[in-house]
Amino acid sequence: MLSREIHLKSYPKGLPSSENFELTTVTVSEDLGDKEVLVRNLYMSVDPYMRGRMSGKKTYVDPFALNEALTGGAVGRVVASRHNDWPVGTLVSHFFGWREAFKTADGRQLTKLPDMQDLSPSVWLGALGMPGLTAYAGLLEVAAMKEGETVFVSGAAGAVGAIVGQIAKIKKGRVIGSCGTSEKAAYLTTELGFDTALNYRQAPIAQQLAQAAPDGIDVYFDNVGGDHLEAALPLMKNFGRIALCGAIAQYNDQEPGPGPKNLAFAIIRRLTLRGFIVSDFAGMQKDFVRDMSLWMKEGQVKARETIVEGLDQALPAFLGLFKGENTGKMLVRL
Amino acid sequence: MLSREIHLKSYPKGLPSSENFELTTVTVSEDLGDKEVLVRNLYMSVDPYMRGRMSGKKTYVDPFALNEALTGGAVGRVVASRHNDWPVGTLVSHFFGWREAFKTADGRQLTKLPDMQDLSPSVWLGALGMPGLTAYAGLLEVAAMKEGETVFVSGAAGAVGAIVGQIAKIKKGRVIGSCGTSEKAAYLTTELGFDTALNYRQAPIAQQLAQAAPDGIDVYFDNVGGDHLEAALPLMKNFGRIALCGAIAQYNDQEPGPGPKNLAFAIIRRLTLRGFIVSDFAGMQKDFVRDMSLWMKEGQVKARETIVEGLDQALPAFLGLFKGENTGKMLVRL
Repeated sequence: MLSREIHLKSYPKGLPSSENFELTTVTVSEDLGDKEVLVRNLYMSVDPYMRGRMSGKKTYVDPFALNEALTGGAVGRVVASRHNDWPVGTLVSHFFGWREAFKTADGRQLTKLPDMQDLSPSVWLGALGMPGLTAYAGLLEVAAMKEGETVFVSGAAGAVGAIVGQIAKIKKGRVIGSCGTSEKAAYLTTELGFDTALNYRQAPIAQQLAQAAPDGIDVYFDNVGGDHLEAALPLMKNFGRIALCGAIAQYNDQEPGPGPKNLAFAIIRRLTLRGFIVSDFAGMQKDFVRDMSLWMKEGQVKARETIVEGLDQALPAFLGLFKGENTGKMLVRL
Repeated sequence: MLSREIHLKSYPKGLPSSENFELTTVTVSEDLGDKEVLVRNLYMSVDPYMRGRMSGKKTYVDPFALNEALTGGAVGRVVASRHNDWPVGTLVSHFFGWREAFKTADGRQLTKLPDMQDLSPSVWLGALGMPGLTAYAGLLEVAAMKEGETVFVSGAAGAVGAIVGQIAKIKKGRVIGSCGTSEKAAYLTTELGFDTALNYRQAPIAQQLAQAAPDGIDVYFDNVGGDHLEAALPLMKNFGRIALCGAIAQYNDQEPGPGPKNLAFAIIRRLTLRGFIVSDFAGMQKDFVRDMSLWMKEGQVKARETIVEGLDQALPAFLGLFKGENTGKMLVRL
């Protein structure tokens, strides 16, 4: 079977370009050894955190290796198998994204997907996957949101932010979200039930946020960093909590920009700022899947996806994350 | 009785100067009404946080009023009394600093000082007072230091920092402190038992700290802000904790300087940064006094004081805080 895959050729400086990558075709032999399984991918995920792995430096995960296929979350179907636990037809999630097909020597790196009912298997890369758990753990555990609190979430139309806002509404919060287009803003308020949506391209976010939160903010879920964090700090209530999840505005900066000049509010207001990484919250996985499945079934959480077609579109999709081209989870159908 | 006191005449911009203040003399009548108490102050405290109250803006406390005596921690002795609970000779602590004497209508604003044994009553303004509780609560509760961890404290020769480092040593930590002179650095290592002392005026603090903490830092107790926080962030271990106590380097800035440009480490390393104010930890007062009294008695905590003489030296003493003129607690003997 021929499989296309994307290799990293060089570590990009600044915004990655097509020159840093190579789309190549390999042959995946259908001649299986004992316990081997052949998987054809259906969807792969592109996520902002992957930019960090392209830097060539170790952060909390190793950098991507050069001249190998990139990796990342994906879902696929077993199309050939010599392993009794993984019969042909089994839907699986795994970390062998950025390629169309692959073989694996046993099932240890595969996760069987639960009965889908009416849901596309792609939800396991979004609302029921890593971005969903990020939102769930970040809001309820890291920021310890309590019922009725005022929550601000940046990047609110993204894969994580949209779920954060909807969980905060389920928890009877007042929810303010920021995003980069008026279409997204309308989506947040009319489709997802946000109380207020701010388009940060329309006016300075600090000014809009101050108007939107005259009584202050209890929880800020930060996906953006930069000016958004600086805008939130002076509006935080006493004992407010800031979950530091990401700083997409800065991922392609070659030199880090200045930090928030008003961090003194952390003292004055007794704030807690806590950085987190979803993999530290694997222990919440079971509760998360139970709650999120129910919320989705009841229509309390909607999980829009932005899907592009074909591996040759994976790189534009990835780069599109930094231009805000996605609403909800950005996915590549393979 | 004549009493000199210091009034605030105008809200300073930048570093305060003598023009913002007025030393004036008032008459405190010794003709006492029922339940009135007359106190002659012995020591008053000057503290960096007072700069915030001179800004004219509300932070976590109200600003100082203009054309009135400033306030702040002080200890004194009852010299006349028509209140049975407060007989002449009683040693008291209270918040009527920046003056030599005052009358109070009842004892509610006074705290009786416990049996002093060999200690000067001034310790209730330092190691056994607000700075001591700040160190104790900040290190053990806010930063949740565990035995054997590596602790970095900035402003380590100051009233709070010197106590932080000594408690961290009692808790079997490896302790690194920063200060601004080589005399202070020698004091920290030879007198207070710090493992390493860094003079930030000798070389960039980031460089010195990286050498002093090759295996990383578990807890950073930040009294300074600015470059010290930026130096600590990339050296923090996973799940490290930063207690944000003060930012003395910035208290006189008219425009806030840039924040740490490497706050992304808070995510990568899953750090918790928590701002705090000592008054929120009044519930720890009893444990604190018990532990600290014992530690001082056993010689495990030494509490050096820098004492200036006379109310006319109070303003130079206060301004001296920002130039690092004190080792340990800065006090004015009245």
